[in-house]
Amino acid sequence: MTAFIGELIGTMVLIILGAGVCANVSLKKSFANGAGWIVIALGWGFAVAFGVYISSFFGSGAHLNPAVTLGAAISGGIAWSIVPQYVAGQLLGAILGSTFVFLFFYPHWKETEDPGTKLGVFATGPAIKHTPSNFLSEMFGTMFLVFGLNAIGLNSFTEGLNPLIVGFFIVAIGLSLGGTTGYAINPARDLGPRIAHAILPIPGKGSSNWSYAWIPVVAPLVGGAVGTLLFQLLFK
Amino acid sequence: MTAFIGELIGTMVLIILGAGVCANVSLKKSFANGAGWIVIALGWGFAVAFGVYISSFFGSGAHLNPAVTLGAAISGGIAWSIVPQYVAGQLLGAILGSTFVFLFFYPHWKETEDPGTKLGVFATGPAIKHTPSNFLSEMFGTMFLVFGLNAIGLNSFTEGLNPLIVGFFIVAIGLSLGGTTGYAINPARDLGPRIAHAILPIPGKGSSNWSYAWIPVVAPLVGGAVGTLLFQLLFK
Amino acid sequence: MTAFIGELIGTMVLIILGAGVCANVSLKKSFANGAGWIVIALGWGFAVAFGVYISSFFGSGAHLNPAVTLGAAISGGIAWSIVPQYVAGQLLGAILGSTFVFLFFYPHWKETEDPGTKLGVFATGPAIKHTPSNFLSEMFGTMFLVFGLNAIGLNSFTEGLNPLIVGFFIVAIGLSLGGTTGYAINPARDLGPRIAHAILPIPGKGSSNWSYAWIPVVAPLVGGAVGTLLFQLLFK
Amino acid sequence: MTAFIGELIGTMVLIILGAGVCANVSLKKSFANGAGWIVIALGWGFAVAFGVYISSFFGSGAHLNPAVTLGAAISGGIAWSIVPQYVAGQLLGAILGSTFVFLFFYPHWKETEDPGTKLGVFATGPAIKHTPSNFLSEMFGTMFLVFGLNAIGLNSFTEGLNPLIVGFFIVAIGLSLGGTTGYAINPARDLGPRIAHAILPIPGKGSSNWSYAWIPVVAPLVGGAVGTLLFQLLFK
Repeated sequence: MTAFIGELIGTMVLIILGAGVCANVSLKKSFANGAGWIVIALGWGFAVAFGVYISSFFGSGAHLNPAVTLGAAISGGIAWSIVPQYVAGQLLGAILGSTFVFLFFYPHWKETEDPGTKLGVFATGPAIKHTPSNFLSEMFGTMFLVFGLNAIGLNSFTEGLNPLIVGFFIVAIGLSLGGTTGYAINPARDLGPRIAHAILPIPGKGSSNWSYAWIPVVAPLVGGAVGTLLFQLLFK
Repeated sequence: MTAFIGELIGTMVLIILGAGVCANVSLKKSFANGAGWIVIALGWGFAVAFGVYISSFFGSGAHLNPAVTLGAAISGGIAWSIVPQYVAGQLLGAILGSTFVFLFFYPHWKETEDPGTKLGVFATGPAIKHTPSNFLSEMFGTMFLVFGLNAIGLNSFTEGLNPLIVGFFIVAIGLSLGGTTGYAINPARDLGPRIAHAILPIPGKGSSNWSYAWIPVVAPLVGGAVGTLLFQLLFK
Repeated sequence: MTAFIGELIGTMVLIILGAGVCANVSLKKSFANGAGWIVIALGWGFAVAFGVYISSFFGSGAHLNPAVTLGAAISGGIAWSIVPQYVAGQLLGAILGSTFVFLFFYPHWKETEDPGTKLGVFATGPAIKHTPSNFLSEMFGTMFLVFGLNAIGLNSFTEGLNPLIVGFFIVAIGLSLGGTTGYAINPARDLGPRIAHAILPIPGKGSSNWSYAWIPVVAPLVGGAVGTLLFQLLFK
Repeated sequence: MTAFIGELIGTMVLIILGAGVCANVSLKKSFANGAGWIVIALGWGFAVAFGVYISSFFGSGAHLNPAVTLGAAISGGIAWSIVPQYVAGQLLGAILGSTFVFLFFYPHWKETEDPGTKLGVFATGPAIKHTPSNFLSEMFGTMFLVFGLNAIGLNSFTEGLNPLIVGFFIVAIGLSLGGTTGYAINPARDLGPRIAHAILPIPGKGSSNWSYAWIPVVAPLVGGAVGTLLFQLLFK
């Protein structure tokens, strides 16, 4: 149960801060409205950093991402039998975190007219719709993430600062590779809030865009697997 | 007396830099006028980081926030009998800090016409007036802050960098959750400068908006208590 | 072979994130379009930091820059005989990294009309064409970089954080000295992606501007040599 | 002689990056033109951080600021007899650093019409001319700086990262208190480049504004002395 609780709390923190920064920047009448990409990228980076810091106190590996969990199972870092517990915690944490954000910004939903903006707080979408490219963006992005995490995670000199360095790595990916599909690079980060979007009584909400939903689920899993195998091939 | 002096100096530094960044960005003719949310969020984050760094040399626990002090008393971290000394130092430090900012930006008050902008340097207000939501924003924000500080504060590997990491946590909260009510999440940070605003001879100042003042005092205290209890429930 | 592989992987990461941030900010319809200089400068800084973190696991010195390699050979840090292995890895890594960026942003090239914007993702150019000044900018910039790296690299107290501090040094150079010639300050960073630009089937691409290409190759090498000699003169 | 050389090199680095970021953001046709206050504040913060990192390898105390040197002499940290060596190195370093920036941005001076913009790269000026307030801004800012440095500098847990933390402290001061007089808070930082501005053949330059020059020299010295005495009063 510790892995389930740790992943649930950590992913909830991740999504409170991550969906939070999207709400803060894009919902109408927020003081941070229109604050730009630097705020989005730093916001998601710190979301990961503090998700990991807080999650790690509750006994899990602080993956917060099924693609990372898949990679850890492939490389033998965790047992396959514990994977469902990790993923269930991540998905439930993401749903709860985005519900927190819905409540936190309650009066702002009515003020925001565009349904696409509202969905954008919860789930990602492509800047240019192009299925093979969108799939490749999410796959390559996650491959890059998982490959990098393997290298950085082995750096024992940074100890207590590792969550911060991982957060800066997420900032880097957002700054450099976030503009094509909104860098889900994490199935739970996209699917959990999309489920919340479908369920919650958001005023004037539109479609949850389920036709796109498989890409930020499947592509990160493929990328996580490929990134892990590539790292093992090169490092061993 | 050491707790009183430590909290006074630390909260004064917090408000010099925190009310300072609001003045720097919003007062007319300041070179930083219109510098945007990234400057506000980083400014308040560093305000906390350096408030903690400097406060900790003077023998207190560097809470700088009655909601944190309340949580520490609930969890047994400090004795209830020392709470008044902490809170008095925090409130007086906040009043002195905002007086420093008033003097520092002296010729800029006359150049700034809107009384709401001038009040905004001292105290918070809601982006959309909606009492239950505004209360929830401040309560949830502080709950999140205190829950997170409990987890991060136990991380002994980061030692001398803890104030910086706490500062980044404040940056994260500002980037992601600051746009609804201006994230007071600290009764002293809001009440102290609001008292200063009422007293100081600010040219062309308007109302100190006392009808809203109870929310950033009561809601953070409730949030601090709930966050502490929730952490203890999960961690123990 | 370890130096070759380490430099190849590290420089690939450098260019994925570095050319990536240029693509993310300048290509049309990217969510980060127009995000500004702060994103460019932080993006390149983290590109270096994570290039170094990841490269250092694969057994090389994590130079990622022929000008740094030249300086290391001059100061006796590495043998002259290993220089070709370093430089070959750097150049090939830069070509592969920019090919990754080409694929990652695939549908955005067609949407972007200006051929100069497309070249700017791959290679640098001068803000004002003025050959002696452009040469001096790249030479002085690299001299400053190599001189600084020598001083920072000897700081044994920061251990596992050195790549991050080096990354912040690159952020600093970008913020302060990047606006004249786009701070190549690295022959591989400019020449590798320029070769990729010439080869790749980029829709509507223009000239690869080969007449300028010698400056960001020769000037950084001169600057790297001068910076190393200056440091040795002063430090020894 | 080591203190002289260390202060000279460190202050030169400080001004290369500090005057550099002003040139980069304000000179016409620079790629970073108009990049905003976040770039200015981060640029100066990293300028101090890397000035200190590099200076400390050459055997001085890495003050880079006569107001800090004065404070160190008052508190007994250094002997009064070494003060002239420190200050001479700082002033000469600032002159050389701003000459570097003049050469680095050579073709951009002609493109920039406003003489005030050109002077702004070298020296500070008030946002609103008001002698007592301008004096107080510079005095209070430096008092705050020196008081804070005393507290932070005693923090032995951060060791090799202290220059970075000091740099973030400068970022904080810039973000929060920089908009009134451009935060010289350092006599050498203002006087050295102003002398360079008067001497160098800058195309279309205007007045060096000598009537204001005494404020960023005298006020920081007073602030440095007061900040040191205040710290000693409270800490001892």
